[in-house]
Amino acid sequence: MHGVLDPTRRVRRTPFTPGVEAAGVKSYIVYNHMLLPTEFHSVEADYRHLKNHVQIWDVACERQIRLKGPDARKLLQMVTPRDCARLDPTRCLYVPICDHTGGMMNDPIALQIAEDEFWLSIAPSPVEAWLSGIAAALDMDVHISEPDVSPLAIQGPKSEALAARIFGDAVTDLGFFRCGRFAWNGVNWLVARSGWSGQGGFEIYVEGTANGMPLWNALMAAGQDLQVRAGCPNAIERIESGLLSYGGDMTLADTPLQCGLGKYVSDNQLAQCWGGRALKEEREQGSTRMLRPVEIDGDLPGFVDPWPLMAGETQVGEVRVSRYSPDFATNVAIAMVDRSHWFAGTELTVRAGSINERAVIRDTFWN
Amino acid sequence: MHGVLDPTRRVRRTPFTPGVEAAGVKSYIVYNHMLLPTEFHSVEADYRHLKNHVQIWDVACERQIRLKGPDARKLLQMVTPRDCARLDPTRCLYVPICDHTGGMMNDPIALQIAEDEFWLSIAPSPVEAWLSGIAAALDMDVHISEPDVSPLAIQGPKSEALAARIFGDAVTDLGFFRCGRFAWNGVNWLVARSGWSGQGGFEIYVEGTANGMPLWNALMAAGQDLQVRAGCPNAIERIESGLLSYGGDMTLADTPLQCGLGKYVSDNQLAQCWGGRALKEEREQGSTRMLRPVEIDGDLPGFVDPWPLMAGETQVGEVRVSRYSPDFATNVAIAMVDRSHWFAGTELTVRAGSINERAVIRDTFWN
Repeated sequence: MHGVLDPTRRVRRTPFTPGVEAAGVKSYIVYNHMLLPTEFHSVEADYRHLKNHVQIWDVACERQIRLKGPDARKLLQMVTPRDCARLDPTRCLYVPICDHTGGMMNDPIALQIAEDEFWLSIAPSPVEAWLSGIAAALDMDVHISEPDVSPLAIQGPKSEALAARIFGDAVTDLGFFRCGRFAWNGVNWLVARSGWSGQGGFEIYVEGTANGMPLWNALMAAGQDLQVRAGCPNAIERIESGLLSYGGDMTLADTPLQCGLGKYVSDNQLAQCWGGRALKEEREQGSTRMLRPVEIDGDLPGFVDPWPLMAGETQVGEVRVSRYSPDFATNVAIAMVDRSHWFAGTELTVRAGSINERAVIRDTFWN
Repeated sequence: MHGVLDPTRRVRRTPFTPGVEAAGVKSYIVYNHMLLPTEFHSVEADYRHLKNHVQIWDVACERQIRLKGPDARKLLQMVTPRDCARLDPTRCLYVPICDHTGGMMNDPIALQIAEDEFWLSIAPSPVEAWLSGIAAALDMDVHISEPDVSPLAIQGPKSEALAARIFGDAVTDLGFFRCGRFAWNGVNWLVARSGWSGQGGFEIYVEGTANGMPLWNALMAAGQDLQVRAGCPNAIERIESGLLSYGGDMTLADTPLQCGLGKYVSDNQLAQCWGGRALKEEREQGSTRMLRPVEIDGDLPGFVDPWPLMAGETQVGEVRVSRYSPDFATNVAIAMVDRSHWFAGTELTVRAGSINERAVIRDTFWN
């Protein structure tokens, strides 16, 4: 890109930006109108460190959309095909959000904060405006807003050790996708066992901008001997671990079934949720395409836009993200592939710009 | 800002980006997830040139939200307090869009493309998602989408001369906020007499990405002797001309009446449009605050976040944008000011960081 990005109120800094800058961030993307770091040392060096040590991630851009009021649970259940009956204040639920056609509107983690209050920790799409329109149109008794809450992630194999030093040993008892309140420095922090890597860790939902840097600094100080570093979601590791990125790997044009998220589509919801009719039909007839892990040979150009996936001269899919994986010594990729060619072991050709390379569909992700 | 912006599909290039880059763009902002140039030579040099010559602006980021279907007009009229009865295919209408509280959701120009098709040329807010939610919730027969249409502006005192060389002399007969179709190079271009400067000009709604650069190049070639240049909305000139910027000068927390847009709020709509009850009440009781042009003395720091506007020790408003104007030899600013202090001639103090300067409320904008 030529030219630089102007400072503007349209791109928001986060409570942790001073820490991120002090740590020597090299680049960002803009995510929910907010800065998201993408690189500190190099994507490869950050990857190696993430897999061996522990990192603190500024993921404040995973904004919380708060649904509060007597109709909050009803609204949430209306827009996700996942049965939310199990959702309670001790548990996180990954909930595909679908529009009336069954298309993926977002894929947040849902939290229950109080009897009549839920937060959706969103990927980049305008969930607040969409839900506000729906709630107002249907005259529902629920207020939609974006509170001053910013997730901070602790990720990597040493994240338990580091989290325990701040929040006490009890935090290590949290099961996967469980959450609870843990005291430190006079604040009761909401901590979940979650995060956008396959290396284990926690996410802290930091309530109040002023609480951000004290926690950041405390984690950095407490983890020195653990070689803690500022980090960020890693473009290689997340593909290896099969963590999907909304807006890149999947969009409103894809259904949760096509995204391989069928286990989050509950049969008992399809009679009532938005898009339920389309999803029921798709489930009965079988999806026509599916997101699949793909291994690609050769030296590929940097990935920006989708690459066609070819069977001979016929396009049978598209690669939606690809990166070279040092640990697996291949290009790891995620592709949307037609049913005719989605079976593991199928050999295809990817057209990456002017380069043609062999691609093989895999059965599972790498990590 | 430390660090650079990563290339990503989340920030879209425009059909004109190759031309913008070739012209040596210096910086961008991200606007509706798309690049918007903010500077070519310098903001001051661009300003001087805009006022004397003619510029071509890549304003593709003014995305079009298409409402198409039998209920399209009904949906449009539901979310704006402006009476759209006069809207027809020869006319543009500036329409405040309001949510159910009467807050400004956006301030697009509306175009009627066909009997059952309208475009909203939007400022940055998620209108598509919001309208889609509303339309689906109310089961309205209208499809909401973002077509491949990218506005290109011709602005400046020589814009008539340049436009006529491409679209023929008939284009100079277009009245202000009138639009029509003009043939060039085998395409029937939709051209409006409009644009986000006070220097006069046109906006062409370029349909189809592939049509972008041929038109850009033709305008650049045809305007050489007019000293045509690539330009962009100018941060100084637009304040002088009183052109409001949604997301900066005004947000969802402001009503159109508070934004000085009362003439676009039609009494006959308030019984039926979203937010109509709140706007009717505000009109009857009088607004408690209003956007006002303000002149500020002294040497001010660069504007990023709002500056408090003080009457003694009491805050009575905030400056929402400010720039030094070479032509008026003062800082031109737009502020939201409480009723008690909004009258022209009122002297206040602005707190710009650590600097206090005298501010005077004006009756009208500068240009």
